[in-house]
Amino acid sequence: MSVRSSLIEPDGGALVDLVAAPPRVPALRAEAAALPRVRLAPVDLQWAHVLAEGWASPLRGFMREDEYLQSLHFNCIRLPGGGGLANMSLPIVLPIGDDDKERNGGAPDVALHGPDRGLVAILRRIEIHPHNKEERIARTWGTTAPGLPYVDEAIAPAGNWLIGGDLEVLAPIKYNDGLDHYRLSPQQLTNEFDKRGADAVFAFQLRNPVHNGHALLMNDTRRRLLEMGYKNPILLLHPLGGYTKADDVPLPVRMEQHSKVLEDGVLDPETTIVSIFPSPMHYAGPTEVQWHAKARINAGANFYIVGPDPAGMGHPTEKRDLYNPDHGKKVLTPQHGSWFRETQHTSLQGSSL
Amino acid sequence: MSVRSSLIEPDGGALVDLVAAPPRVPALRAEAAALPRVRLAPVDLQWAHVLAEGWASPLRGFMREDEYLQSLHFNCIRLPGGGGLANMSLPIVLPIGDDDKERNGGAPDVALHGPDRGLVAILRRIEIHPHNKEERIARTWGTTAPGLPYVDEAIAPAGNWLIGGDLEVLAPIKYNDGLDHYRLSPQQLTNEFDKRGADAVFAFQLRNPVHNGHALLMNDTRRRLLEMGYKNPILLLHPLGGYTKADDVPLPVRMEQHSKVLEDGVLDPETTIVSIFPSPMHYAGPTEVQWHAKARINAGANFYIVGPDPAGMGHPTEKRDLYNPDHGKKVLTPQHGSWFRETQHTSLQGSSL
Repeated sequence: MSVRSSLIEPDGGALVDLVAAPPRVPALRAEAAALPRVRLAPVDLQWAHVLAEGWASPLRGFMREDEYLQSLHFNCIRLPGGGGLANMSLPIVLPIGDDDKERNGGAPDVALHGPDRGLVAILRRIEIHPHNKEERIARTWGTTAPGLPYVDEAIAPAGNWLIGGDLEVLAPIKYNDGLDHYRLSPQQLTNEFDKRGADAVFAFQLRNPVHNGHALLMNDTRRRLLEMGYKNPILLLHPLGGYTKADDVPLPVRMEQHSKVLEDGVLDPETTIVSIFPSPMHYAGPTEVQWHAKARINAGANFYIVGPDPAGMGHPTEKRDLYNPDHGKKVLTPQHGSWFRETQHTSLQGSSL
Repeated sequence: MSVRSSLIEPDGGALVDLVAAPPRVPALRAEAAALPRVRLAPVDLQWAHVLAEGWASPLRGFMREDEYLQSLHFNCIRLPGGGGLANMSLPIVLPIGDDDKERNGGAPDVALHGPDRGLVAILRRIEIHPHNKEERIARTWGTTAPGLPYVDEAIAPAGNWLIGGDLEVLAPIKYNDGLDHYRLSPQQLTNEFDKRGADAVFAFQLRNPVHNGHALLMNDTRRRLLEMGYKNPILLLHPLGGYTKADDVPLPVRMEQHSKVLEDGVLDPETTIVSIFPSPMHYAGPTEVQWHAKARINAGANFYIVGPDPAGMGHPTEKRDLYNPDHGKKVLTPQHGSWFRETQHTSLQGSSL
């Protein structure tokens, strides 16, 4: 099942795939019926989706405490077997409340049920560790000011414990919103890049409609890649499809707008793949842009476009940007210290965004 | 001038030494007279001391923006020439105000003057970058709650810019407080370990009087090292001598107490070296304990004793510890993700502290 793109290896060398093979499903359902249950919030389901398809490779489930500490303090996790490091700047964790913890009663495995109460996954060899929200927020966002959207909506109301473990989902996660065909997994994307004979893939993350500046930047990147000698660079136009704040443009509207841009010929459909990145949005600036780039490496992209103030927003309580607009770009470049693999990965920086 | 302990290499392979050779001093004084001046606060002078003697090797001066970002986001800095990583969890920075920045007027070098106005050092090839205090505090302490001692005394009153560059100090930094003979540099400590024929050096950081639990722990560590086959383990009893909070026991009292413990035979003077670690104290828990261990590696210690809640304190506004008491130990152990060099460095953990 392991996938190896012709352009770049996934973190850890092999793409993680946590979706059970269909013949296993009846046995998993029977097993799950006897397990303590944990109910996933909508954003938890999005993270289960992200994990299941290997966007966070080599991570194989919600973080146990060791991975959580590695992520919080070092923005990296260790590869299994002492084989080095992989970037992992956002903690991917599953909060539970005191009731859940008590109900668990020391069971090694739990069943995860979706917001609609349907069985989604089994989490095995679990570890329950404290959810120190203040520390998580401070180290992830670099502020604890009130009004951070993800904090208000996904952390503040969540429980005071985190449950980590190895994830096995019963089936690919679908939303039945008419957009599932856009949600290509890293494996499907890699296959598509290979089918098109890409010799470079450049990813563009966005959570807003494509505007003219974006289009110029993407076309300019393509031109530069051609100048560098690549013969068939493919653009991965990759809007984020998970949680976004209330005043961002809703996903269905954005997808319609992205289609229109292709129809209008602003971007060339022959050399562009539009797909949805299933991750929720943190608005955590330089910490989050590492996640955005790392996940696209795992989908086979070997170039990532970084504009000014990636994943940034205004400070929630002061009249200034929350992040220095240059820092996102800088943490992705080796001389500033990120762990992106220098030989394979190059970030092309756009100034016109 | 480079030093190589027989037990462990300094980070980057060679101990940094930023103290000018005496024959250079007249020329440096003449040069400094023509440069813009920056006045060091007492805590800045302590950091200049730390840098000059190579405790922070491979760092060669106050951090420029690239090193600052590496430290804040990854708790590490890159070795020069792409040669890997070295742990560096605390930003070692020099804040300046708007006036200083303006007065600098684009000069490439500045003269650093001490709190007593005497010339201390020249900082070369400077870079002035923003001092986003909120982000620095949140990412270093994991909280922005009011009442963090170092924040209140050294960051809040400091300027809104950071000036980084290569440091050259005119002479070893002295405090003339009757304790300078305790302030051995990493090079002097390494020489002393070699002179004593140490085949293991275990460091014990403390900022309080030695109590009975400490003594048991140090003696127990020695016993365990002997059991591991070391023939001559030497204890580096290494009280922190820089800034501490007002309700900690003052350094002169602590040094007197440490001497007494040796005189009383609680610790064996033959196998113990008492010295002062010149660093200021952040009280930043798991972030700071990395610094405490890393600096001792640079002084030739290949074992570091970690107790519960190292560098921790009570939460300044809530009735709880600021840090999980296990996290300090965990960030130092390879399976939890720190960059301490696994083959050479082992942390012996004490439970009786």
